[in-house]
Amino acid sequence: MAVGNAPLPEFEPIDGVRIGVTNAGIKQTKRPDITVFEIAEGATVAGVFTKNAFCAAPVQLCRKHLATDSPRYLLVNTGNANAGTGEPGMQAALACVRALAQKVNVSDAQVLPFSTGVIGEPLPVDKVVGALDAALVNLSADNWAAAATAIMTTDTRPKGVFRTLEISGKKVKIAGISKGAGMIRPNMATMLGYVAVDAKVSSSLLQEIISDATRLSFNRITIDGDTSTNDSCVLIATGKSGLDVDALPESDLWLFRQAINMVFVELAQLIIRDGEGATKFVHVKVDGGRDEAECERVAFTVAESPLVKTALFASDPNWGRILAAVGRSGIDNLDVTRVGVVINNVLIAEKGGRSPSYTEAAGVAALAKDDIVIHISLQRGDAEATIWTTDFSYDYVKINAEYRS
Amino acid sequence: MAVGNAPLPEFEPIDGVRIGVTNAGIKQTKRPDITVFEIAEGATVAGVFTKNAFCAAPVQLCRKHLATDSPRYLLVNTGNANAGTGEPGMQAALACVRALAQKVNVSDAQVLPFSTGVIGEPLPVDKVVGALDAALVNLSADNWAAAATAIMTTDTRPKGVFRTLEISGKKVKIAGISKGAGMIRPNMATMLGYVAVDAKVSSSLLQEIISDATRLSFNRITIDGDTSTNDSCVLIATGKSGLDVDALPESDLWLFRQAINMVFVELAQLIIRDGEGATKFVHVKVDGGRDEAECERVAFTVAESPLVKTALFASDPNWGRILAAVGRSGIDNLDVTRVGVVINNVLIAEKGGRSPSYTEAAGVAALAKDDIVIHISLQRGDAEATIWTTDFSYDYVKINAEYRS
Repeated sequence: MAVGNAPLPEFEPIDGVRIGVTNAGIKQTKRPDITVFEIAEGATVAGVFTKNAFCAAPVQLCRKHLATDSPRYLLVNTGNANAGTGEPGMQAALACVRALAQKVNVSDAQVLPFSTGVIGEPLPVDKVVGALDAALVNLSADNWAAAATAIMTTDTRPKGVFRTLEISGKKVKIAGISKGAGMIRPNMATMLGYVAVDAKVSSSLLQEIISDATRLSFNRITIDGDTSTNDSCVLIATGKSGLDVDALPESDLWLFRQAINMVFVELAQLIIRDGEGATKFVHVKVDGGRDEAECERVAFTVAESPLVKTALFASDPNWGRILAAVGRSGIDNLDVTRVGVVINNVLIAEKGGRSPSYTEAAGVAALAKDDIVIHISLQRGDAEATIWTTDFSYDYVKINAEYRS
Repeated sequence: MAVGNAPLPEFEPIDGVRIGVTNAGIKQTKRPDITVFEIAEGATVAGVFTKNAFCAAPVQLCRKHLATDSPRYLLVNTGNANAGTGEPGMQAALACVRALAQKVNVSDAQVLPFSTGVIGEPLPVDKVVGALDAALVNLSADNWAAAATAIMTTDTRPKGVFRTLEISGKKVKIAGISKGAGMIRPNMATMLGYVAVDAKVSSSLLQEIISDATRLSFNRITIDGDTSTNDSCVLIATGKSGLDVDALPESDLWLFRQAINMVFVELAQLIIRDGEGATKFVHVKVDGGRDEAECERVAFTVAESPLVKTALFASDPNWGRILAAVGRSGIDNLDVTRVGVVINNVLIAEKGGRSPSYTEAAGVAALAKDDIVIHISLQRGDAEATIWTTDFSYDYVKINAEYRS
């Protein structure tokens, strides 16, 4: 299930990035499960990764390699997360990286590995290595859409964003793809996102840009509150368009960063719209907080409440569950008699209780929509935050109860 | 749905407590929805209440009255939580309290009100007040079982515990009832628990005993992570048995406290066994932590993970989800290479990965049982904690999507 339509955009090539996909037979489906990104020499690459302590072997290698050398290749497999696999898992990830590095004549540290799928199963190294030649033969600048499909797991559809903009008279292209439908409460990034831009950006600025964009996008979505062991997101700046971002005046830099942020937010929202069993796309906006952190805390508590989520699935304006979630979110000295709740422009609660103007009919009409905005006002400060989530449906249980069967 | 059988015990009367139940028509069912406890003069009463900032009007009144006077009556209604109702809700609770106080000739502050049911609807005061005479006529020392049924909401069965023990040559009786099946992640108490003992206990010791018992019982269960707005638990010591608990030697006092703790733990476990949609009763035991707080934190993160819960529903030994939940629980400097997981005596993971001795067949057999013990070893200290939870089933979604329809 998924909310609304979200066809892939018409991708244009990003000069400096080629992608190859192939089927290594890791998964039982016929869909490609191996994706190789080739990045031109001179590009900069920045990444953000899961904060889960049980982070997967490939995530650990990615972090190490990014700190060591300039990445030239990304190697992605689906069907197996290579997480919870201990030292053998690390050796398996290294073996795949080394095989690719030797074939394309780069150092091991110039290859970044990514895995997604079942946790705890040994990675079938032979299958991955055996598929590398086919993936390399397939390398093409026109494979963004194919890659968006090849990185899917329980996703029902591929997710991609493509944007062009003009800055300082130069055209810039940004392409991004992402995947993820369950175990989604990213903490530093989502599993998986790849964004490339053809501008030139220094490594330090690129890291700043990806961290900021991630904070406002992948770190503000939740499907089930479960942070994956494999979350990884990579931003590639190939430098081929001739635009030097580090040299831009402040206003143009702002424009560039906004464009990147928008691509990240859109990719993050695509993940939510395709959340496991999702029938609703839900914005939870909290304003009037003392700081952004407490707004996020309230928003995530509401967004992850199973009672709120099942009421959303039922299109039931059971707003008491929203107040109950706000109340348990652990905000210091919350004055509940000031709290208000508006859903899709219907004023439901004010001063901590039901608004005199509220009617059940208006609430039912507001909840009937596929896109829901839950707006909570704490009325104790000027900070605000918006996060995105889904409802909890029978299909969520079905998908996750039957995941391995 | 509920896990296993759990018939009510044969209650004996607790001298000093009489109970009356009746149907006020607040709910559409024919089941009684009003319960009145009459407590003999000279008894001591202690309570613990929800920490949800949106705590209901009756909870606020209970706290205030307990601090003011010695309770003589408890007034409980189901079908309406009188929460999220603002100042009118407080007036409604007061009106019900006052009506009962006048009928039985005690002060308002000697009546403690309790409400449970839908949040945000106005309490039908006329129905409650109109039913008081019938409840008072019904007062009897033999109504513990009737009360266990009258306080139910989405519970599928009444919950009660009865124990006798001999201390210092004197027989002591303890009776307790509880309710709750959803919005269960108590924080200081569950909605609702009533326990009475016929021993004599000073108010200060009684508060110490209930706080300790609650910490080890109601505060260690979770069904959906949602803390109710109405959680309340009361411990009554009538003093009628002749045993003076404050005067007991240390070893006998320990025995008494253990008996109370056991009753609380059993009542809390009964709530979990009857959790909304529950098909499994799950112990999550975490040991080897640096302190109890971090053991609880890990245990609750695992217990509330929707991915772990749906795997439990499917009887799927998808232990990677358990490791992922441990990894995101936010424990400082967790060395994942030491973490072990045992489920129903089957060693599944050790040193942070799958145990060489583990077979899928053994895992499937372990998960097939209704009672599941997930034992997680952090191996970094001596502290431990056990909490209890349920799985996440289709029926959980069904019950909560259809709650108000």
